[in-house]
Amino acid sequence: MKNTHRLYGGIEGGGTKFICAVGTGPGNIRAEARIPTTTPEETISQVVDFFKHQEDSLGRLSAIGFACFGPLDPKPDSPTYGHILPTPKPGWTGADVVGMLQSAFDLPISFDTDVNGAALGEWRWGKAQGLETFIYLTIGTGIGGGAFVEGKPLHGLLHPEMGHIPVKHDLIKDPFEGVCPFHGDCLEGLASGVAIEARWGQRGNSLSPSHLAWELEADYIAQALASYSYVLSPQRIIIGGGVGSTPHLLTKIQKRTRGYINGYIQSDIILKNIETYIVSPGLRNRSGILGAIALAEQTLQ
Amino acid sequence: MKNTHRLYGGIEGGGTKFICAVGTGPGNIRAEARIPTTTPEETISQVVDFFKHQEDSLGRLSAIGFACFGPLDPKPDSPTYGHILPTPKPGWTGADVVGMLQSAFDLPISFDTDVNGAALGEWRWGKAQGLETFIYLTIGTGIGGGAFVEGKPLHGLLHPEMGHIPVKHDLIKDPFEGVCPFHGDCLEGLASGVAIEARWGQRGNSLSPSHLAWELEADYIAQALASYSYVLSPQRIIIGGGVGSTPHLLTKIQKRTRGYINGYIQSDIILKNIETYIVSPGLRNRSGILGAIALAEQTLQ
Repeated sequence: MKNTHRLYGGIEGGGTKFICAVGTGPGNIRAEARIPTTTPEETISQVVDFFKHQEDSLGRLSAIGFACFGPLDPKPDSPTYGHILPTPKPGWTGADVVGMLQSAFDLPISFDTDVNGAALGEWRWGKAQGLETFIYLTIGTGIGGGAFVEGKPLHGLLHPEMGHIPVKHDLIKDPFEGVCPFHGDCLEGLASGVAIEARWGQRGNSLSPSHLAWELEADYIAQALASYSYVLSPQRIIIGGGVGSTPHLLTKIQKRTRGYINGYIQSDIILKNIETYIVSPGLRNRSGILGAIALAEQTLQ
Repeated sequence: MKNTHRLYGGIEGGGTKFICAVGTGPGNIRAEARIPTTTPEETISQVVDFFKHQEDSLGRLSAIGFACFGPLDPKPDSPTYGHILPTPKPGWTGADVVGMLQSAFDLPISFDTDVNGAALGEWRWGKAQGLETFIYLTIGTGIGGGAFVEGKPLHGLLHPEMGHIPVKHDLIKDPFEGVCPFHGDCLEGLASGVAIEARWGQRGNSLSPSHLAWELEADYIAQALASYSYVLSPQRIIIGGGVGSTPHLLTKIQKRTRGYINGYIQSDIILKNIETYIVSPGLRNRSGILGAIALAEQTLQ
């Protein structure tokens, strides 16, 4: 039974902003704030101030869930648990973000990747309810994927890095070389928001639905979704993020993914109902922050 | 505690032969047989005869583990549980192979893919002992992968089909179009034993270590292993199968996989110890049949 007196703190830590919220779920968010991502010390200190201030008016929090950009260490038994791992983002490499929070709050704090957080949000209240194995993929400035497998968030060695999967790249059709500093033309290198802007000189939301950009975009994403389907065998793939939410894009992706799989995976959801296999988030752009609330909730279960 | 009086039956069901064994593990296989894969009725009937005969001399089995070629339905709550799904293999589509066994034996029977079976064998007695998340990839006539995720065999929607992942294919370096009837030049289409023989007119084991075949082979496999690493975040990848066991191939694969990942996954096992990340099976070519014994053992736990 859920204790209705509990109140949770959620943090969706992103590369440009941290969203913080206090509440218990989609119908009950009592306070929310956006804090710009600057240095770890400054950002986390503002996060702490927000929650302290809310505790003064709303009452004590029961737990905090922190879903953060990566790479990060989500393994509680690891010496670098709760730290940001080497990242090009200045000042964040090695930051002990969970430790900083924990020293301010004598509360259970749960920590995972931003995309595993969003996956959890969709599992708790969105389009992954009742599923055991699924993927949440965000396509925005960057591309990242979180997953549940057989009912548990996937970490494995560290955590997935689905955005960096290689895709076939026809240099005649698309001579753009890609923007990934590690891999050049991996999925993120070719299909992220940054890649779209670098290739076409304008942001995706200013390109018309018939622009060649969307054909390439759907093709690269569909290749990746086919790969994810072969490797992880998800029951559903949820696609969020600023680029991923482009209205006309989803049907293009569905059609091409089915084309790439070409009947090989013998399941009706792929063969006949691809529109229920590849879907937009049930929580729209709120999967991340609500997932952080759900992360907090889970620490007490 | 293990009941030392127990005796298990294991079946490794392959496309050309079914291996059956009675025992409890690597140090104790009491009987073993190879049965050619013909029709489901004939093959399973010979399997039944073998176990019945062994029960007469060795005593009653406690359980049977059946690790089989796919596609198959491994979900106990599904109406087609224990059946072979649509397959080009004549006569096997829809065969209720578990039902056929179950009607002959009043015993717990556990059923999974051949590659999940081999993964279990490596987890129980081989190089995946103590790991939570890992992949067993077989590269032989075909290519297939099984996986454990957070300590449990991965099924998801159905089961992974890792052999069919797309890879980059440079038609100038390798004009061979691939042999996969579904995808042409997916990994299996380009790197399976069948593909090697079709491309070079001879089997892999007759090609010298310096033959271009191995450079291509290592390259395609390394691309796939990088993809698997991004999607599933395994702690280890075990490579078995007739082609996969080619001695000089493993170091080529290790080197290229590390090259493809290019420092992106911040874990020492990939950055510095790739030879412990990508390994040959601890049970050599016995992962499959011993995994089937382990499957039987697990039904009683």
